[in-house]
Amino acid sequence: MSGGRLNVLFIMTDQMRADCMSRVGHAVVRTPHLDGLASDGVLFRRAYVQSAVCGPSRMCFYTGRYPHANRSPWNEVPLPADEKTMGHYFGDAGYRAALCGKTHYTPDPLVDPSAQPEQGIRRTALAGLEPWELNDGRGEGWLAHLRSRGYAEEVAGDPFRVDMPADADRDHSAYPTRFRREDSDTAFMTDRAMAFMDGAGDSPWFLHLSYFKPHLPIVAPYPYNELYDPADSPAPNRSPEELERPHPFHVPFRIERGGVAYDDEDVWRQRRATYYGLITEIDDHLGRLFHFMKDRGLWENTLIVFTSDHGEYVGDHWMFEKELFYDEAYNVPFIVRDPRSCADGTRGRMMDEFVESLDVLPTCLDACGLETPPVLQGRSLVPLLRGEHGSGWRKEVFADWDFRFYWTPKKLGIPSEKCRGWMVRDDRFKYWHFNGMPDVLFDLATDPGELRNVAGDPRYAETIEDLRVRLMDWRMSNEDESRVSWTYERRPGFGRNPFVA
Amino acid sequence: MSGGRLNVLFIMTDQMRADCMSRVGHAVVRTPHLDGLASDGVLFRRAYVQSAVCGPSRMCFYTGRYPHANRSPWNEVPLPADEKTMGHYFGDAGYRAALCGKTHYTPDPLVDPSAQPEQGIRRTALAGLEPWELNDGRGEGWLAHLRSRGYAEEVAGDPFRVDMPADADRDHSAYPTRFRREDSDTAFMTDRAMAFMDGAGDSPWFLHLSYFKPHLPIVAPYPYNELYDPADSPAPNRSPEELERPHPFHVPFRIERGGVAYDDEDVWRQRRATYYGLITEIDDHLGRLFHFMKDRGLWENTLIVFTSDHGEYVGDHWMFEKELFYDEAYNVPFIVRDPRSCADGTRGRMMDEFVESLDVLPTCLDACGLETPPVLQGRSLVPLLRGEHGSGWRKEVFADWDFRFYWTPKKLGIPSEKCRGWMVRDDRFKYWHFNGMPDVLFDLATDPGELRNVAGDPRYAETIEDLRVRLMDWRMSNEDESRVSWTYERRPGFGRNPFVA
Repeated sequence: MSGGRLNVLFIMTDQMRADCMSRVGHAVVRTPHLDGLASDGVLFRRAYVQSAVCGPSRMCFYTGRYPHANRSPWNEVPLPADEKTMGHYFGDAGYRAALCGKTHYTPDPLVDPSAQPEQGIRRTALAGLEPWELNDGRGEGWLAHLRSRGYAEEVAGDPFRVDMPADADRDHSAYPTRFRREDSDTAFMTDRAMAFMDGAGDSPWFLHLSYFKPHLPIVAPYPYNELYDPADSPAPNRSPEELERPHPFHVPFRIERGGVAYDDEDVWRQRRATYYGLITEIDDHLGRLFHFMKDRGLWENTLIVFTSDHGEYVGDHWMFEKELFYDEAYNVPFIVRDPRSCADGTRGRMMDEFVESLDVLPTCLDACGLETPPVLQGRSLVPLLRGEHGSGWRKEVFADWDFRFYWTPKKLGIPSEKCRGWMVRDDRFKYWHFNGMPDVLFDLATDPGELRNVAGDPRYAETIEDLRVRLMDWRMSNEDESRVSWTYERRPGFGRNPFVA
Repeated sequence: MSGGRLNVLFIMTDQMRADCMSRVGHAVVRTPHLDGLASDGVLFRRAYVQSAVCGPSRMCFYTGRYPHANRSPWNEVPLPADEKTMGHYFGDAGYRAALCGKTHYTPDPLVDPSAQPEQGIRRTALAGLEPWELNDGRGEGWLAHLRSRGYAEEVAGDPFRVDMPADADRDHSAYPTRFRREDSDTAFMTDRAMAFMDGAGDSPWFLHLSYFKPHLPIVAPYPYNELYDPADSPAPNRSPEELERPHPFHVPFRIERGGVAYDDEDVWRQRRATYYGLITEIDDHLGRLFHFMKDRGLWENTLIVFTSDHGEYVGDHWMFEKELFYDEAYNVPFIVRDPRSCADGTRGRMMDEFVESLDVLPTCLDACGLETPPVLQGRSLVPLLRGEHGSGWRKEVFADWDFRFYWTPKKLGIPSEKCRGWMVRDDRFKYWHFNGMPDVLFDLATDPGELRNVAGDPRYAETIEDLRVRLMDWRMSNEDESRVSWTYERRPGFGRNPFVA
């Protein structure tokens, strides 16, 4: 270990579904290296993000706090400057903490008036992380690399545009990118991660390797665009009933988010196939990376966490992209490999304990022997990795959706302060309460596909009451306490104890 | 007007009950000058604070935001440095914004590591306010004044200690303070306020005149200690039933907060009488101040707001001090005098529209022609002062109680993250939901004194369901948006409108 301390490699993909690994039984996509990581660590099948869109999901991972606490509930809402991030925690502990890829971070204009929200995500590393290589899909380093590799300027200008023949009869996602596989953003970022590790020296390091793919556009370099036969793509999880008696938000939102294209069978088949190709491409490069790490003696002294910022519908529920109500957006892949011998007993296991994005930071801190302060709202997974399992593990996960930024609420006439939803999801139920539109309840025992909203069914009235109390209690138990320096638990009490003589 | 602009005088007393003004029909206490102010302005009978203890209540007034948004939910929890206060808003607008008295503000240690929470309240003016004269009950200027007036050092050392004869047969509150009426903190702060106004010159000013009284200790200078006959003190609002089947928090908390003393009739009679004396003392000095203002031509160019940070039980519900569930703590006196002719039509009215502490800041900004940004969570009362009344006025008020700092939850074994309560109070009901102890529901139609908790009565099940939804919706509609720079309402939309051709 570097100075006896673990390194941390926190790998994030963008918009990757939880079901898209062979290890969890996907019928088509092959991910041998992620499977290998899982067989050497623990794969959590029920990991959920607390917001299913890039910016706020990532802010939850990075701060270890819910959206209402870190106050960055959507993409262009800057993270307040007083929010500590993974970079700060590890930097404060003497680590070299760096970013290779995307964070969707926007600097706080209250501190830096020149900060431009729409530009920030491209130019600025997450506060606390050294900007080793930035890439949100158009990273300047990658574009410069494309130019240096001889591609025409127009390729660097619009790297994900594909050339389609004049008589094209297939969806654009069938066609290869103009850059070759060895020059993709995925390949480039992997090379840059290896360069970081190579030059990191003796200090322990924290590296956030954050791939842009398989985020849209769903186009892949050859051969990944044709690796999978569209004929093999599994059919989307959706029913006609969903559109016959839809929740009022569903139909306009699916239009706004491009879901209608997936009504066409040729389109969903092809896009799914290319989507799987992008995932296998990532898996190939992770194979390269893991091999490199083993070669350099880094495999045994690096904690690895692999996940995604949210999922992707690719036609499920008649939807494209993310957000809305469903597990396909909120459930994410999640693998942890703790190299320490105390984690040997669980290698290769798959666990169903509920995980929240907020758990990553305390898990990394705990594994590295660092303090996890009370402001963090998640839990360390290390006890689970050690094979311990108290009855006290969480029974449900929560999410917080702020959607006042879209065309759909405008069309529906929902005032912006009423564009909010809270989710609680346990073993049996998925419940969304909204302050400006009808609730959503799925009985996952009888409807695991989340196709029938039973929120209006009187037989579930007591269930809904109970779930609402749990939502309130969740919020009340997780208020910000960044400025609370003591409670009765941490100090004898306020004044004299009135209950003794 | 100063440069054509209104001045603002924001007067706050500490721990003053809403019912303690002759104007609202109190049987004993006389407040002719507050009555006069009310007859020349509007008195709001249903003004509620959003936290019923000094620090967090004041932070709500000063920031115009709920405790969960300004993140300062209790006395020693510093206000984060990125929270703008009244001082900032008015200072930014070219006002001279100053403090004369108490704010219970603690500076943010994340910005100033040397800040000491327990000391802060004594030494630091609220961020944004010029520290014209500080006084939380032991203000150094007042103590120096006492010394300069020839009092013994021990008087300045412990100004509110009274001398009781060896054979004292009355409660300490019967006895006069050792300082004379003309040297009380109330007198001194009034003099200092007048000195401020005298020297303020041509700039418009914002003055927060914040009296320490009638906060405990309940002792008053002669003749105020004996102005009212204890025999005339109205009996407390309480019933034996309250203690026979009490809410689990009630009995230990009343012990912790000194309520047991008020079980004794002699004690509640005397303390109420002295408490009323302190209020009349304040009223006398406000009379002096208002006269001074009229004399100086300031009466017609100053907006005046009078209120208190919370109430006081003085034996109601077997309690002393503040907090817990009841209106006696949350309902506060509230008078606004807007000198402009547009407010002439409502002078002398009493209104029952629900007011929250958060309304003070937008009201002052609105009256002064200044912008009220979206981060403010209250409403301007100016339309009501102008006699307008849309049907859109709020139907309920809310509060947020964080009590993880006391001995009572420790004794009851309530974990600190479960020491939270949310209140909604409308025309008919007062409801408290707690995440760590039983709920409280009062049916104010049948139980206006709040003596019978009906939260467990199945006949109220639907009512409670509805109130819980309103609590969730309140929270969801009032999330922090300090970093939100646009919503669909303030900008055309994100990208292209998908609902047009």
